[in-house]
Amino acid sequence: MRRVKVGICGLGTVGAGVFNVISRNIDAINARANCQISISQVGCRRDNIDCDLSKSNVSRDIFDVAKNPDVDIVVELIGGTTVAFDLVMTALNNGKHVVTANKALIAEHGMTIFAEAASRGLIVSFEAAVAGGIPIIKALREGLAANQVNWLAGIINGTTNFILSQMDSKGREFSDVLAEAQAKGYAEADPTFDVEGIDASHKLAILASIAFSTPLSLDGLFTDGISKLEPQDVTYARELGYAIKHLGIARRSEEGIELRVHPTLVPESSLIAGVNDVSNAIMVNADAVGTTLYYGPGAGSEPTASAVIADVIDIARVMDSYPDSWVPPLGCDAAQLKQHKIMDIEDVETGFYIRFSALDKPGVLSDVTKIMSDAGISIEAIIQREQPAGEHYVNVIILTNVTKEKFLDEAVVHIENLTTVRGNVNFIRLEYLDQI
Amino acid sequence: MRRVKVGICGLGTVGAGVFNVISRNIDAINARANCQISISQVGCRRDNIDCDLSKSNVSRDIFDVAKNPDVDIVVELIGGTTVAFDLVMTALNNGKHVVTANKALIAEHGMTIFAEAASRGLIVSFEAAVAGGIPIIKALREGLAANQVNWLAGIINGTTNFILSQMDSKGREFSDVLAEAQAKGYAEADPTFDVEGIDASHKLAILASIAFSTPLSLDGLFTDGISKLEPQDVTYARELGYAIKHLGIARRSEEGIELRVHPTLVPESSLIAGVNDVSNAIMVNADAVGTTLYYGPGAGSEPTASAVIADVIDIARVMDSYPDSWVPPLGCDAAQLKQHKIMDIEDVETGFYIRFSALDKPGVLSDVTKIMSDAGISIEAIIQREQPAGEHYVNVIILTNVTKEKFLDEAVVHIENLTTVRGNVNFIRLEYLDQI
Repeated sequence: MRRVKVGICGLGTVGAGVFNVISRNIDAINARANCQISISQVGCRRDNIDCDLSKSNVSRDIFDVAKNPDVDIVVELIGGTTVAFDLVMTALNNGKHVVTANKALIAEHGMTIFAEAASRGLIVSFEAAVAGGIPIIKALREGLAANQVNWLAGIINGTTNFILSQMDSKGREFSDVLAEAQAKGYAEADPTFDVEGIDASHKLAILASIAFSTPLSLDGLFTDGISKLEPQDVTYARELGYAIKHLGIARRSEEGIELRVHPTLVPESSLIAGVNDVSNAIMVNADAVGTTLYYGPGAGSEPTASAVIADVIDIARVMDSYPDSWVPPLGCDAAQLKQHKIMDIEDVETGFYIRFSALDKPGVLSDVTKIMSDAGISIEAIIQREQPAGEHYVNVIILTNVTKEKFLDEAVVHIENLTTVRGNVNFIRLEYLDQI
Repeated sequence: MRRVKVGICGLGTVGAGVFNVISRNIDAINARANCQISISQVGCRRDNIDCDLSKSNVSRDIFDVAKNPDVDIVVELIGGTTVAFDLVMTALNNGKHVVTANKALIAEHGMTIFAEAASRGLIVSFEAAVAGGIPIIKALREGLAANQVNWLAGIINGTTNFILSQMDSKGREFSDVLAEAQAKGYAEADPTFDVEGIDASHKLAILASIAFSTPLSLDGLFTDGISKLEPQDVTYARELGYAIKHLGIARRSEEGIELRVHPTLVPESSLIAGVNDVSNAIMVNADAVGTTLYYGPGAGSEPTASAVIADVIDIARVMDSYPDSWVPPLGCDAAQLKQHKIMDIEDVETGFYIRFSALDKPGVLSDVTKIMSDAGISIEAIIQREQPAGEHYVNVIILTNVTKEKFLDEAVVHIENLTTVRGNVNFIRLEYLDQI
């Protein structure tokens, strides 16, 4: 039986998971890969106490693994985009197939890496880069291959979903929950990457590229995080029948492609509104199949390892067959990928949740509703709530129907200019998501 | 560029979907399949007004398609297990790859068909046989290939889910909703196949075979339908925080494999409890990834076509490469499949919902709780509700903790023998489903 040798670079949380799951499930893995898989080398700066490396060939230099003649598939799990890029290119230059869980690397350098792999007849796989253990790349690239994707929307960052779930269920402040998430290891010491949506934007770029057969790019991708969200908005949203989720959304329209990551009100009856804590879920709406949803753990040692090893098995099975029969990284040949215009957020159409502080006196609501009407925006719901501080001001909360963001922006300026309105108008985008 | 020719047998609801989606999305499909796909023949007893067949080669004899030298892939969409079996075997004998949406055919004759295909170096694919447009076969067979599956549980029949959703949300009787479902075309004129769980049992057998690497078989699969469910049970379940869903469940334990289709109480906070109407969803719990869930349309013309064409694309891409590199129908080579003991339902452990009619007088509950305690069954909740008819009887509803069914059966006999209890004790199984 054919032997396929795997080299693991990086033995942190995910690397340890890959090492342990391969060791534990090797018989089932070999049966599915139709070959004998073994880990021929591990590259790591230090050992991981969760792994029994006593029988392993360990190198302190990950580049040893990328150059090792006794390695067929290099698994890159060191993260980052500098050394990881060099490592992957070195592996390809040495004739190795590559599996990576590195969303930033793929989002930023995917096209370069894929071109290098294609020119050498090698495979680069990255199922684990998006939504951890959920096989969403395979679903989108192969399972839904008959479709034209209309849109996708996903909870693709577990840290932000944990924070929002806690803000929602416990009424807690963002900063308070973040501190707990950091203590529990759900959030990094520097949480910016997660809570400002950068991690989600990398994943969204990957999903959108496959869904719409476009080259990978972060250009024009609108990104907003959750650090400015207030508990009162979570509460008011619930009163109105909505949950607030941090979504990555990609949609194709006649005007171009929308690519955006931001907090979003979704109907609380929708399945995705029930996805809590560190879980991930992605909805995909496509022309033939309609709406499907994929749920599971978006991070963690063995869930991510599950996706990494699925890629290893796929490569091991097909690596000795014709490259023409392989599934290309983005679902079709690079020459078939088409650039589309990425829409400015100003031109994107969504519903909106709006909150502002207004004097509690007659005429204020009629001024506001006239401004909305003049901007061509129709109102879905409007509520007034006492402010905790009391005084003569109340919170006014409005849900609008779907409108272009630039019209909303105009209306916001006019509302902020009302003498009866104090401070800024806060808004959050709202999606109906096909009402599933 | 390579040309791959498809022959469609059967032009009903799904056949029309396949014809139309291939026609509409041919450019994207060809880009993903890396070849030029065309429909070279359609076999159907009569044309379908939803399809423009003016440029098509149509035969009234589906066996013409299976023997046509100008066909590479035969798509079987006629249903049933007699002519369909002959058709598929004829196609294989004539060197054609096969795609089918036929769950009964695969569940009953899969092993014969796969063996024939393997001996001839041909592929048989059946993504559309389970859960319509949801790519669950691919997820289980490839996406989760690194895992040992612990259990799976799915809403895999849209008709029963529609009926249960209506009984739940509207408080309607089974027979009343069934009549509506038949009028709407969700249920067949003879609904037995759906409402008694036979269709779901075919799908469960297929999922379990892939999940546990066992030969396909319906032997020992326990099947119960929803025709005996009463609206009051749906109501009481809700009061206790549960929804009733008709689930197909497969679980691996040290004692063997559980294979069962039956109405099931699930926590209403679980995602699957929110899957309503004709939608399908499958939860899969596996050792590395944990719990994932796959949701989408379980039937319908274009959703099912989406799955059929995904199979066509996969075959078209790989058919000229080495058979060793193909994904085997059940995820691993037939020689690697292992028989496991299928557990008798008496030995299966679940929680239980129990309802019976008892005299409204002191001592009854203590008799009942003593019986449960003697049978080693602990009680999770117990409520008493007036019966609509009044009299001196009340409905007693009990939720038990997890116990073997045979212990519950013993307790039921003793409860039914109490002079204070009238009629039968009704019970429904209950699953906690990992609380997601």
